[in-house]
Amino acid sequence: MPRLAVGVVGASGYMGGELLRYLRNHLRMEVEVIVAGERAGHDAAEVLPNLTWLKGRTLAELRLDDLRGLDLVFLSLPHGQSGLLVPELTAQGVAVVDLAGDFRLKEPALYPVWYGFDHPAPGLLGSAVYGLPELYRKELEGARLVANPGCYATAILLALAPLGPRLEGRRVAVSAASGSSGAGRRAEPHLTLSHLEENFFPYRVGRHQHVPEVLQVLGEKVGAVGGLSFVPHLAPMARGIVATCIVDPAPEEEEDELREVYTDFYSSSPFVEVLPAGRWPEAKWVRGTNRAQVGLGRDPAGTLVVVVALDNLGKGGAGQAIQNANLALGLEEAEGLELEGLYP
Amino acid sequence: MPRLAVGVVGASGYMGGELLRYLRNHLRMEVEVIVAGERAGHDAAEVLPNLTWLKGRTLAELRLDDLRGLDLVFLSLPHGQSGLLVPELTAQGVAVVDLAGDFRLKEPALYPVWYGFDHPAPGLLGSAVYGLPELYRKELEGARLVANPGCYATAILLALAPLGPRLEGRRVAVSAASGSSGAGRRAEPHLTLSHLEENFFPYRVGRHQHVPEVLQVLGEKVGAVGGLSFVPHLAPMARGIVATCIVDPAPEEEEDELREVYTDFYSSSPFVEVLPAGRWPEAKWVRGTNRAQVGLGRDPAGTLVVVVALDNLGKGGAGQAIQNANLALGLEEAEGLELEGLYP
Amino acid sequence: MPRLAVGVVGASGYMGGELLRYLRNHLRMEVEVIVAGERAGHDAAEVLPNLTWLKGRTLAELRLDDLRGLDLVFLSLPHGQSGLLVPELTAQGVAVVDLAGDFRLKEPALYPVWYGFDHPAPGLLGSAVYGLPELYRKELEGARLVANPGCYATAILLALAPLGPRLEGRRVAVSAASGSSGAGRRAEPHLTLSHLEENFFPYRVGRHQHVPEVLQVLGEKVGAVGGLSFVPHLAPMARGIVATCIVDPAPEEEEDELREVYTDFYSSSPFVEVLPAGRWPEAKWVRGTNRAQVGLGRDPAGTLVVVVALDNLGKGGAGQAIQNANLALGLEEAEGLELEGLYP
Amino acid sequence: MPRLAVGVVGASGYMGGELLRYLRNHLRMEVEVIVAGERAGHDAAEVLPNLTWLKGRTLAELRLDDLRGLDLVFLSLPHGQSGLLVPELTAQGVAVVDLAGDFRLKEPALYPVWYGFDHPAPGLLGSAVYGLPELYRKELEGARLVANPGCYATAILLALAPLGPRLEGRRVAVSAASGSSGAGRRAEPHLTLSHLEENFFPYRVGRHQHVPEVLQVLGEKVGAVGGLSFVPHLAPMARGIVATCIVDPAPEEEEDELREVYTDFYSSSPFVEVLPAGRWPEAKWVRGTNRAQVGLGRDPAGTLVVVVALDNLGKGGAGQAIQNANLALGLEEAEGLELEGLYP
Repeated sequence: MPRLAVGVVGASGYMGGELLRYLRNHLRMEVEVIVAGERAGHDAAEVLPNLTWLKGRTLAELRLDDLRGLDLVFLSLPHGQSGLLVPELTAQGVAVVDLAGDFRLKEPALYPVWYGFDHPAPGLLGSAVYGLPELYRKELEGARLVANPGCYATAILLALAPLGPRLEGRRVAVSAASGSSGAGRRAEPHLTLSHLEENFFPYRVGRHQHVPEVLQVLGEKVGAVGGLSFVPHLAPMARGIVATCIVDPAPEEEEDELREVYTDFYSSSPFVEVLPAGRWPEAKWVRGTNRAQVGLGRDPAGTLVVVVALDNLGKGGAGQAIQNANLALGLEEAEGLELEGLYP
Repeated sequence: MPRLAVGVVGASGYMGGELLRYLRNHLRMEVEVIVAGERAGHDAAEVLPNLTWLKGRTLAELRLDDLRGLDLVFLSLPHGQSGLLVPELTAQGVAVVDLAGDFRLKEPALYPVWYGFDHPAPGLLGSAVYGLPELYRKELEGARLVANPGCYATAILLALAPLGPRLEGRRVAVSAASGSSGAGRRAEPHLTLSHLEENFFPYRVGRHQHVPEVLQVLGEKVGAVGGLSFVPHLAPMARGIVATCIVDPAPEEEEDELREVYTDFYSSSPFVEVLPAGRWPEAKWVRGTNRAQVGLGRDPAGTLVVVVALDNLGKGGAGQAIQNANLALGLEEAEGLELEGLYP
Repeated sequence: MPRLAVGVVGASGYMGGELLRYLRNHLRMEVEVIVAGERAGHDAAEVLPNLTWLKGRTLAELRLDDLRGLDLVFLSLPHGQSGLLVPELTAQGVAVVDLAGDFRLKEPALYPVWYGFDHPAPGLLGSAVYGLPELYRKELEGARLVANPGCYATAILLALAPLGPRLEGRRVAVSAASGSSGAGRRAEPHLTLSHLEENFFPYRVGRHQHVPEVLQVLGEKVGAVGGLSFVPHLAPMARGIVATCIVDPAPEEEEDELREVYTDFYSSSPFVEVLPAGRWPEAKWVRGTNRAQVGLGRDPAGTLVVVVALDNLGKGGAGQAIQNANLALGLEEAEGLELEGLYP
Repeated sequence: MPRLAVGVVGASGYMGGELLRYLRNHLRMEVEVIVAGERAGHDAAEVLPNLTWLKGRTLAELRLDDLRGLDLVFLSLPHGQSGLLVPELTAQGVAVVDLAGDFRLKEPALYPVWYGFDHPAPGLLGSAVYGLPELYRKELEGARLVANPGCYATAILLALAPLGPRLEGRRVAVSAASGSSGAGRRAEPHLTLSHLEENFFPYRVGRHQHVPEVLQVLGEKVGAVGGLSFVPHLAPMARGIVATCIVDPAPEEEEDELREVYTDFYSSSPFVEVLPAGRWPEAKWVRGTNRAQVGLGRDPAGTLVVVVALDNLGKGGAGQAIQNANLALGLEEAEGLELEGLYP
């Protein structure tokens, strides 16, 4: 079968590197262009020494002309940059999976509040499909512009979506722990091993930019919660997200029944695993994969606890982006993603 | 000034070792007996090579006769064992600080439910003082039997206590992350570095034994919450607890006013630090100390978030035990505890 | 093309799990039997939750009858056990790759000294091929019994082999650091995160069992060193080996020339990468792969320093075992091994 | 007893922070000035939140006038800066302990080669005392200018010094692993947790600036080695150095006799512990202390292996600086240093 031509823009970041790790094993996509602004001109395998298959490939500067003929482009840039590129790309018939937040929110007015910039192409927000296949699989088929979800948003939505109308009016308190790669390939004092080893701390309490996309999707696809609080934390690990959702009790719920609801909900989703009673998700079991583990239980007071573990660069990022691209291009959903987790 | 004679029972565990680390620098206590059941007969500095001051001291077997003349004994044994020793020790006039859960709960019927044993000395439960000095300082003066709080319970109570009646009827969702030393000096598969490195996972969801002591103390000293859910997690670090408490919104609250309430509440507590607006606790800033950091904020929806960081072996264990012993024996509250944290 | 039937014996260990991780992506091998003694009867994906492709596969007990018809068996058992199985397996025409030390040494008398047991099948030692493809590729073609090298031995031999006769009479001092997975899936006190985090220490100084196989191979294929000292260390990481070899100076050597020698030596070895001047190997760049990085330099006094990094479970174990099996069965050397490293 | 007035210059670095951690517990020194160039004007406890005793103290800019009346100043600045300050300080009668490399080497010509600058005060090099108390205790008494040794140099010298003339003509190969705090409080890509976790790699192979000071001291105090090679590595931990020295065999040596030599050599050195046969040093046993552990053994081929573990910020830096200051000022050698190690 012929391969489709794709490009990766933003290859020198962790997310871009992870896209290229997966794409080596993708039988239907051919990576034709690899863009890495500040490292342009270097050999890709020198900048990404873990990716030997890139030996001899040169990192390119960003030039729209080079992307013109491609079937699809993955944009993995800092928030605020893809909004400037997407109008031209889509106009030229190039499908786009955007890994930043630029097309996740429908409401332009939310961008200055949560992202700190005025959206440059508000007219395109309506046409972007939110790339959480477990909720938007239909919409993703043939999509031309996919907004890849935030890593935390993916975890929280996978935890809550099966509850549907059961969620109505209940408050949800979410605490999540993330590995340091979620902060990107930046060298900042709080990201050094000296600081982060043997450490654990919250950040952006109550004002993380993944909150509005969670609320938007809950509203569209699930049900109106009675409130959602979110506290992200940085944990002393490089990869992984574990989101723990504590949901107000509902007296009539039975744990076994709920587990069945979850299992049914994800029965045709190859990358989401609902764990049996008594087992809970662990970041390490899904490290390096596009998988998510979901565990749930009720505590003695009837509160519902749902925990999701995923790899922030996998199902929380690059893996999911490829899953979305597969759906958008009419390929097998799991193509290129059948790598197993690295343990230990 | 003459020194008081103390004993440490359970010296080969992490908590016992930490007691002895602090006690080296305690000017008013003399460690006369060091008991370590399974390592009895060995040189203490061989079993605890970080503690050079113990060179030449032999670890002893547990013999009540040896403890008889002491002023105070620290019991750091697995749950269920101190209940057997305490009646005789207190009968002989030895003050006891018990670091296990054996005397934390007032209601004997809770022991089989949460700890899995019938309490051997229910008659003593009423006389034990719960050793959280920030709430029970008065009761601790001259106390003969102190139940040292659980590490998570300490963190949660320090987070919630200043709210007092403001807590009435509000639900509280707590997620906490702990270092592996909280599980003690056991070699189990999930505690190996191979498994725990780059990992993060919940455990004992909704059934951790620190829940009933939190509810008991809230009832006695704070106010009746509308519900408390608690999910502990294991994080890839050796020491530290960070407890994140998400409290149902109360429309009238102001963050600045609350911060003042907290600051006032802890104004005479030398080991609790309320952080200014915009700063949040970190496990590493209090590592190796008897300190706790408290941070708080309200999210856009009005939910209150309170985060406490402490060292599970410090303020969450051995440090607090010494603080309690100081109060019980009429010494300076901070004696022996003025060590600074190890950073990085 | 038809697939060859293989078995994995010892699947519940780290090495067995890693074999199965690679084998999922092997197009020419079909895993027909998975043996895991103590976990027999359990679902494989429950014991190895990172390996979703094993869902529904039951772990089997060890029964020679079940292995009889296979083309090849990977034995990943504690030292001393495969010596008992191999005679019967090879007699039945099953090719064997043994990941333990049982067939690495040619001289039976060395087994009691270095491994603590008398070899049960000394007659087979001569027919076993030492499975370091970079040195024994010819001998491995069609081999019926392959002794997979030790993880440290692989690193040291890859570092020294290109020197050939240049090594004659020169002393070599090797220090190496290994991740904790090298010690296997055991829960021992020194392997807990509590102990190993923020720690680093030597072990088995001068008496590690990989020394005699290094000397044997140097004697057969390289040149007689003037002495070899080896000090292994445990580092606070789960995976990876970095071996640093310091070789007595040879006045006439030129670094550039040596680098060319190394590059030529490994020019047809797809899994060994010789780094350019000024770059040194890192454990993380090869994590999760069958690759080795080699770096070299001369210090101002003329001493030669050669450093090799590999993944102890990859090129130091399961990856190399599959590479050996490919050669023994006449398949492509790299089949199933083209996974890229996980970074970060 | 009256306290002596000291200053700490460079307080915002890890080493400066560690000096202040120890100095809290020093009964004979009063910290009168705390200089932290780029953080001047801030509250010290805000920049160093682990050091609560500094609350209310303001970090100062560097002004020689403020240091004039002090008894002693600790200089903890980047290499090349103390050379500019020391002439004036010593001229004013202020004793100096310099934690940088500026006064470690006697030979001015070595500075451009190893440190990259021409020495600004070569005339003072002769008067500086090398601050390794175990070798220079006599010279340190009353010293006015102490060059605090490099962290690696301390480890290597403690390993080799007791050998004395036994070392004559023998080659020594040293590999050492260091925690990331050795690189200082810089945020660089290779120091992030994302990069360094699960990693291990050599750096500055054969050209680390601690080599010349080791050779200088061996020449002055020990014996002329037949060659010294040194390969430092970065390990995924925040603190600690383990140096493994492999020394050419000497046929006549006996391990027990050597151990006695070492024990005798350090019999009056309170901070160096020679381990019994079969035990080896571990970074964690000395973490947070001014101690060093020394272990030794001979391998079957007669090679001598000596391993030293210390805390790079303790005996490898700030702890040793205080030990030197104590000797220089005529105080008890161990004053302020009697803290025990943090375990786990």
